Order: sequence, then C-alpha cells, then structure tokens
Amino acid sequence: MQNIEFSDIEITGGHWKKRQEINSSSTLACIYERFKETHRFDALKCEWKEGDPNKPHIFWDSDIAKWIEGASYILNSKYDEEIVKIIEDAVDCIIKNSDENGYYNSYFLAADRRNRFKYRGYHELYCAGHLIEAAVAYYEITGKDRFLKAMCKYADYIENVFKKEKSAAFITPGHPEIELALMKLYRATGEKRYADLAKYFIDEHGRHSEEIEYLEWANEKQNQDEMPIKDRKTAEGHCVRALYLMCGASDVAAEYRDDELKKACERVFDNIVNKRMYITGGVGSTNICEAFTIDYDLPNRTAYAETCAAISLAMFAGRMLKFGADSKYSDIIEKVIYNGAMSGVSLDGKSFFYENPLEIDPDFNNVNTSTKKKERFPITQRVEVFGCSCCPPNILRFVASIAGFLYSFDEETVYIHQYMDSKCKKDGINIVQKTEYPNDGKVTVKCDTDKKVIAFRIPGWCKSFSVNRDYTIKNGYAYIALNRNDEIEIEFDMPVRFIAANRRVHADSGRAAIMRGPVVYCAEGVDNGADIKSVLVDTNSHFDIQESEFFLPVLKTKAYRPMENESLYYEANDDYEEIPLTLIPFYAFANRKETEMQIWLLRKH
Amino acid sequence: MQNIEFSDIEITGGHWKKRQEINSSSTLACIYERFKETHRFDALKCEWKEGDPNKPHIFWDSDIAKWIEGASYILNSKYDEEIVKIIEDAVDCIIKNSDENGYYNSYFLAADRRNRFKYRGYHELYCAGHLIEAAVAYYEITGKDRFLKAMCKYADYIENVFKKEKSAAFITPGHPEIELALMKLYRATGEKRYADLAKYFIDEHGRHSEEIEYLEWANEKQNQDEMPIKDRKTAEGHCVRALYLMCGASDVAAEYRDDELKKACERVFDNIVNKRMYITGGVGSTNICEAFTIDYDLPNRTAYAETCAAISLAMFAGRMLKFGADSKYSDIIEKVIYNGAMSGVSLDGKSFFYENPLEIDPDFNNVNTSTKKKERFPITQRVEVFGCSCCPPNILRFVASIAGFLYSFDEETVYIHQYMDSKCKKDGINIVQKTEYPNDGKVTVKCDTDKKVIAFRIPGWCKSFSVNRDYTIKNGYAYIALNRNDEIEIEFDMPVRFIAANRRVHADSGRAAIMRGPVVYCAEGVDNGADIKSVLVDTNSHFDIQESEFFLPVLKTKAYRPMENESLYYEANDDYEEIPLTLIPFYAFANRKETEMQIWLLRKH
Repeated sequence: MQNIEFSDIEITGGHWKKRQEINSSSTLACIYERFKETHRFDALKCEWKEGDPNKPHIFWDSDIAKWIEGASYILNSKYDEEIVKIIEDAVDCIIKNSDENGYYNSYFLAADRRNRFKYRGYHELYCAGHLIEAAVAYYEITGKDRFLKAMCKYADYIENVFKKEKSAAFITPGHPEIELALMKLYRATGEKRYADLAKYFIDEHGRHSEEIEYLEWANEKQNQDEMPIKDRKTAEGHCVRALYLMCGASDVAAEYRDDELKKACERVFDNIVNKRMYITGGVGSTNICEAFTIDYDLPNRTAYAETCAAISLAMFAGRMLKFGADSKYSDIIEKVIYNGAMSGVSLDGKSFFYENPLEIDPDFNNVNTSTKKKERFPITQRVEVFGCSCCPPNILRFVASIAGFLYSFDEETVYIHQYMDSKCKKDGINIVQKTEYPNDGKVTVKCDTDKKVIAFRIPGWCKSFSVNRDYTIKNGYAYIALNRNDEIEIEFDMPVRFIAANRRVHADSGRAAIMRGPVVYCAEGVDNGADIKSVLVDTNSHFDIQESEFFLPVLKTKAYRPMENESLYYEANDDYEEIPLTLIPFYAFANRKETEMQIWLLRKH
Repeated sequence: MQNIEFSDIEITGGHWKKRQEINSSSTLACIYERFKETHRFDALKCEWKEGDPNKPHIFWDSDIAKWIEGASYILNSKYDEEIVKIIEDAVDCIIKNSDENGYYNSYFLAADRRNRFKYRGYHELYCAGHLIEAAVAYYEITGKDRFLKAMCKYADYIENVFKKEKSAAFITPGHPEIELALMKLYRATGEKRYADLAKYFIDEHGRHSEEIEYLEWANEKQNQDEMPIKDRKTAEGHCVRALYLMCGASDVAAEYRDDELKKACERVFDNIVNKRMYITGGVGSTNICEAFTIDYDLPNRTAYAETCAAISLAMFAGRMLKFGADSKYSDIIEKVIYNGAMSGVSLDGKSFFYENPLEIDPDFNNVNTSTKKKERFPITQRVEVFGCSCCPPNILRFVASIAGFLYSFDEETVYIHQYMDSKCKKDGINIVQKTEYPNDGKVTVKCDTDKKVIAFRIPGWCKSFSVNRDYTIKNGYAYIALNRNDEIEIEFDMPVRFIAANRRVHADSGRAAIMRGPVVYCAEGVDNGADIKSVLVDTNSHFDIQESEFFLPVLKTKAYRPMENESLYYEANDDYEEIPLTLIPFYAFANRKETEMQIWLLRKH
C-alpha cells in the first residue's frame, strides 16, 4: 500500500485549514525567534569556545533540523523568500563546518571535538537523523539538493564508522531516530545502502546490552536495549525513543518484507494502544525518564504524555498502514491529532506544552510550603520555549504535513483514512473531500481515478453511519465500488459519548470521559468553578453542542456537585447542587488562565 | 481539670487488654532485641571511636529513652526483674558517661565532642527531652531516683547554656520535645524553674528565624520558626515537631494561665482536625519533610501519616482537655487510638509502620521498570525496625499508658473521656467501667466518689444513645447527677456509617469511608480481589457484623464492580457484577500479605 504524501494534498477548509494557517503565520516565526534568541542558530557556526557564553547543547541541531523540516513543508503551499534565506544560511553553516568526511554536529565540533561517537547517550545519531529528515524535506519541496548531498556524505560516514569499521564506542544509538531518517534518505535518493544501514541499526538494537555502560539514571529499557526488536511484546523505556525506533522498524519491515519484524511491530503497537495509552493518545505515564511504565498504569495528574510521544505514536501508526488498511491504526492517528498532539500548542500557535496531563489541580500543585523540596507536577501553562525544546518544532512539522495521513492506495483501491476538507492529486488520483469533520460527521468525496474501489475508514468511535452506496466492511473500512467521478456521501453519527476505562486503570475508576467524534472533552475551572473532581455527570444527560472560539464546539449540560459543607468529614448524604457544566475540547485547555482541568468526570451511577 | 494518670487505672478487659498484653509480652522484647542488635544500647557507653563500625546516630538516645519510658509503664502493672536490670544498666551508662555539668548525649560524647549544641538540626535537645521523660517515668513507677537526678542536673545545664548564658549556637531546638519533657520534670520534682525553662523555649520559638541557617532541604516552617506560637493559625512543617511543640505550648499555657497561648493552641488544633487530618487521625500529607502541606491536601496513596504524628496529635488533644471537657478533643483521641496510631503496629506486636497510607496499590507501586529511579510510595508491609526508629517505641509507651486518656476530674465532676473496660482508684475516686466498647456501644460505670456529677463523652460519631439517668449536654458531654455508688448504664447506638469528605479533598471525591463507632474500615485485596478502587458501595447496604481475628468485628456486605472488559476504553455501560465485600478495621491492614488496601470506596450515587 502506498501513501499519498502531504505535498500532493491541499487542505482547503475546516479545522485543519485554521490550524495550518496559525502554524504558518504564527508558530513558524515564533519558534524561529525563540531559537534565535537562545543561540540555537548561532551554534550552527561551530564557533563556540570554552569560556564563551551560550554553550551549544547536544540536541540543538535536532531542534533546528525539525524547524527546517517544518518550514520546508510550509514552503510547499507558499514559497517565502525569507524562509528560504534562513534555511540557506543554516545550510551554509552546516556545509561549511562539516568535516571532510561529512560529519556534522555543532556540539561536538565546537565543544567536544575529541569525543565524537563516544557517548551513546549524547544524541549524536539522533541529531544526524533529524538533519537528514530536514535535508530530505527541503530537497523534496524546493528541489535544492546541496543540503541533501551533504547529508548523504554524512550518512556515508556513519555507515563507515558504525557498520563497516565499527569504530564508534557504541553500536546502536541511545536515542533512535537515525533509522527512520535513513529510510527517508533511501526513498529520496534511491540509494539502497541507506536502507541497509537503517536495517543494520534496527537488527542490532537490543543485541548488545551486556557491552553497554548506562548512565546513572537509565537502564537497558531506557536505551531500547532490553531485547532485539523482533522479540518484543511490550513498549518499554523512553516513549519517544521507543516510538521513533518502531517507526524505523516498521519502515524496514515493509521494505525488506520482514514478517517477523512486522509482527513485533504489531505486538508493540497493540500493547501500547490496548494497555499503555491515555484516552488522548498520549503515552508516557511518568516524568521519570519520560517512559512507559506497566500495563494500565495511567495516572492523570502526573501523566507525562509528551507532545513528541503522541506525535511519534501517530507516525508509527501511519507506517503500520503500509501493511494494509486497518482502522486500528488510522483510529489512533485520529485520536492523536485531535487530542494528545494538538494539546501541545496554544490556540494562537505561540506557546507549547511538553507534558500533557489529563488533570490539573493548580491549588494543590505547590503544596509543600514547609520545605524547599516540592512534589513534582507538570506545568499548568504553556510556555514559548523549553530548554529541551523538541516538542515545538515537532508540532510545526506535524501540522504542516498533517495531510500525509489522509490517503493511500494500492492497485485496486483508494483508501481514505482521515477526514479533512481537502484536494488531492497524485498519479491519476484526484480526490476532492468536502467536510466540516469533526465539527459534524458529514463527508462528501468526489474521486476521479481508474481505481475500482474506494475504502472509507469507519471510525472506531462511530456506532452508526449512512452512505449513499452499497458497501462491505473489512478491518474497519467500508469498501465501495467506484465509478469515474463518483461523488460519495457518508455521514457518521456523532453523538456525545461517555467512555469508561478498564477497571485496572485505577486513576479513572468510577469516572467517565466525554467524547464527541474523535475529540476528547475536558472541564476547566474557569467555566465550572472549583473542585471539578467532585462533580458527577449523568450518562443520560442531554448535551447542547455550541459553536466556540476553540475551532470545534463546546458541550453544555448539567451536572451535580456535593453541596458545600464546612466539615472535613461528614455523614455521606445526597445533598447535591445541580450545576451547569461546560466542556471544551481537551486540546484547548489552559488557553485562558491557570485553572483546574479534568477529563475523567465522576459518573452518577 | 486534673487528669487521672494511667498508673492509677487498670485496663481489665476488651480491646485494650489484648493490645496491652501483646505490648508487654511481645512488643517490649521485640524492640529491645532490635535495638540491641543495631547497637543502640551499646552506643550508651560512649565508647565509639572514629573507624569503629556502628557509629551512633544523633537520635539513638531518644529511641532508647522511649523504650525505657514504655518499659517503665509496663512495670507499673507487673514488676519484672529483667526489665529493671536492662534499665539500670542503661542508666549506669548514662550516669557514668555524663559530663560533670550533667550533659549527656551518646552521639556527641563519642563522635563529635567539640560540637555540642552547635547544630540546631541535630536533635540534641530532642534526645535530652526523651531522656527526661524516661527518667520521670522510671522514677514515678519504681521510685528509683538516680536517673531522675541525673536528668535534673542535665536540665540545669541546659537552663544554663540556653537561658542564662545563651552560649549555644541556637536558641530553640530544631525538633521540639524538650518543652513538654521539662513540664513533666517540673511536675515530678516540683521545681518551678523547669517549667520556666519550658516556657522560655515556647516563648522564643519563631522569634529568631532571621538568625537561623537552615539545612538545604528545610525552611523556617520545617523548624517551627515561621512565627511565634501565639500568632499561629495553622499547623506547618514537620508534623511531629509541630505537635510535640504544641504539647509543650498547651502545658505551658495551662500552667501559666496564658490565654493568648491557649487560643493559639486551639486555633492550630482546629486547623489540623478541620482541614489537614486524614479520617484515620493521621497527619502529614507528604513524605517530603514529613510535613503538613495545605488545607484539604490529603492524598491517600502517598499519605505519610507517620505513626508518631498520630500519637502526638492524641497527646496534644489530651493536653487540651485540661482547659475543660470538650468532646472535640476527646473524639480526636479516640479517632487516633483506634485508627492512625494502632495501624502502626502489627497484630502480633512485632512489626511496625512508620507511614500509614490510606490506600495501597502494590501492583502499581514499582512501576518505573525502565530506569533506576522510581516513584516513591510508602512501604506496603510492616518491618521490625527502621533506621529512623522513632515509631516502634512510641507505640510501646503509648499503648502501655493508654488508660491515661480515660478520666479527669475537677472539684465537682468526674469526666469519662474514653470507654475501656477498667478500674480506677485515685484520691477518693473509684470507677469501675465494664464495656466491650467499641465491639459494641454498651458501657456500665460504677463510680464511688463524693463528686456530685459525672460527665460522659457522647462520641461525635454517635447519633443516638440511651442512658438510665437524666442528663444535660454541654460541649459533647452528658452531665449526670451522681449519687454514691451509682451504677450508670449508657449505650451508644453503633450502626455502620458512610462518611464523605469535604469536596475540596479531591482524592476522596465520589467516595465514602465506612466506619462503625470510632473504627475506620478498609477493604483489602486478599478478601476482595483486585481493583478495589473500581468497587462501588451502596450507602443503603445492609452489613453483617462478624467476629474476627482482628480484635474487633469485620463487616460484610455486597458491592458492585465493573464487569471485566478487555478494552482499555469502552462506551460506559451499567454492566456491574455484584461481589461480596469484606471490610476489616483499618488498623489491621497488611497483616496477612502484601495486597491492595482501600479506605475510600466509590459511592453508588
């Protein structure tokens, strides 16, 4: 199955048109300014010397690279001389300062020349991977190839050091990313050796844990060394590392038709989405090493659920679709893009969350006033830049290329995985999709192609739908015979739903999350007053669906809160006050002020 | 109002007779053995030298002292040559190694001779206080006075250093205790200067915070320096420090008829019990500095609720009764003695909890398997000794002297604060109390005295009672005219009750605790299976009250648990299975195996 890339698709309306406009007009410039201010762009010059201020950081190259990648994607829809100039200047620095052998890393070239490829935990191959992704993106959008060539040379050097000479101090990277990047480089250049190198890294992961010295705080799981990928049944360790690695693994499995590796990818995916994922599509239950923990351990208030982890889960799911259309993958993409990823950016596109908890309780977040130590909780307001700023440019590239999740095709069939108002033109496939989804569930698709079948994902959340054609269902897709220039209307009923969590998820016990379509809702204190944890919702409630400033509707209903009582403890009674309850899309939380936030509301049983 | 000391009372049956038997026959010897093994007794010899193993610890003297105090109390009911020998040997060491000026501290005398009274955080006056308490106890029970005399000399030296010369490096202790101990010494010796010295420390606390250097992790609240006691409105910092200090403060307020200080004691007490106390009487919401945090911050799973803190809350409440009978104080004593204190010791008396969480979830307590760091949770099983072993000997002395909470009197009235099967004889007051309380609510009191009135506490939890006399109620006590040799029968109705927490206590939202009489119940996994957090109880349920091996009955009822479901998230439904639910007294948790434990159960609303 072949994916249709975002560059062949134009988002023409609806939620994502708004999001992309903000991304281009606001997020792009905002991140650029912050990276300039924090000397990330300066670092590319490799001029830093001991004693200078603003020492470059080991992962700054990856921040810049993701920004270039996102900026390139944005250039696809609108050429911008200024942006090209910024990228060209950065590329100048990179090429000028690259070693003769192709090596480039602004941290090691300036601050630690002697220790190249010595520290597995120092993100060198991770940075290289992001630079490669950036070079591929810039080349594919603009046709300019000198950055790509420089990165090919760097990749050749990496092949030499790691695969041929084996002269590096480690075998596989502490932070995967190079694997999926090499697969992109292979597809951009046609050079099979890059795929082979990706396959080499994928195969070697987890085969050398006994040779490895770990940092004080990490162990083999953290570094994706607990076992060979082919043997895995669960997702372990640092979430983004695990998921970038699985992206590379699924790419390699598809390219080399490695069924054993593919099955491992399926097992790990299933483990995540069936046992270790928040309802938002967020993953990572603890800030300690930003890691997966164990099945059903999903605390809400201390959820880490890094923005990058949600994005990389969608990336992984998108790659799994190459093995065939199955809505279990495309449903998770949808879950992520409307919830756990987009909560990472403010509605104005200018500020960001690294962590995306499902519950915020600001009054109780800074409680230990009797000591200098504090309990740790996620921050409650988005900020413009982090020291570790992987998430903002990840959002940038993710939103700019979101259309890449829409379509794929094989010999006979065109697949519609996601619903966005858009136009697509690729290899004789013309698709015009008109929809306000997920504002409502109506989608009209006009498809002009010589393929014989079109397949629509029936979202997992959807209990009933109507379509103006006959269809058969397979793996969550409705398959419909297609005639040239057919216009198909499909409508997914989109009532408000109450969702329960498995009873093993102790943090959610007695509670329900409220969803409409793919969108998870939350209640904020600014709308609903204090102590939302004590508010009960009735699953038989009627909801008013009202337009809002949050790109998608808000939900209004009534709920019940225990009457105020002066006592700390009192005989349990049935004294509840009825209160109006306003729910907003989860991604829109914390856009007004610091306030309570709660996804999982008590159920009136 | 004058208290009747435990030494004038014999517990003759019921719950506390069993507890005291275990305390004497098991706990006493068990703690002694552990303290011997860990070289705490050896340390008294002050022979440790640099390079030797088993360096004494700054608070070991206090452990030994509390053991001697508890052992002395046990001697009151049964003289034991062996125990006396152990104590005499310890006293020999203390006297032999005391400085000429009376100073004794096994840590500083052996390991740090030059830094006496230099470090405020080093528990020197805290150890001194416990040694004084031990000497007073041993003297009062046995009449042997050489330990008392040694401690008088030490107290004189402390007076000299701290009050007269002001030559110590600090003004008030980092860990209060000396204040209440000096008040005991005053009462044992009649020497007013000890009370004056206690008053001096009480008055100076919180007046010198600007002069004080704090340890890295603590601040002025931690060291009870945030403000003068008279100005306080809330309980702050390290719970045991705060509560020992308030014990001393209330002693001083009573002795010096200091109304301002008394009012501060009342305010702090009210703040604790109305806003910062677990339903078990436990206090201390965080392990970080073992401290109070803020109003209504009462997480269950990470509750610290140190055994010593519960005990010291009862001690504080007992002292507040000196200002007049008010059930708000005696109710808290009862809450502590049946719940948050006694959970600190196993049913066999041999092992101990330092922390007393209200929820245990062992499957999820060691979750971060991908790193060497872990989330911190309280331990789930009692242990025989801790490095910091303040709680075990505190339990020892507390149980041995529990009868001291029973009675007090003033000119006209005898007050019955607690209900225990017992005999009392003091200054022409003879009381025989027959009861199985709190197994049931029947109490028969035969009182032979020339006092004209007897006052029974009507427990705050009791909604109805019957008594074979006329009565008037004041401050939670039923006042009854008394004739010589009157036998009064009172019966408190003791149904099972569902208790709700204030809606600000977010950890308890939607949940109820189940109590019978003063006893808080909990559900353990060993009886009820996994995922107790998801179990719903109906407040209209009928309970069977059944005899048990836990000294008090267990409760049996039915409850509801969501049906098992393979999905992580699913459409909320009403598929519940009815399950039998067994509740045991909270104090008896973790006596069978490591298992889930839950006090606050979901309510079927």
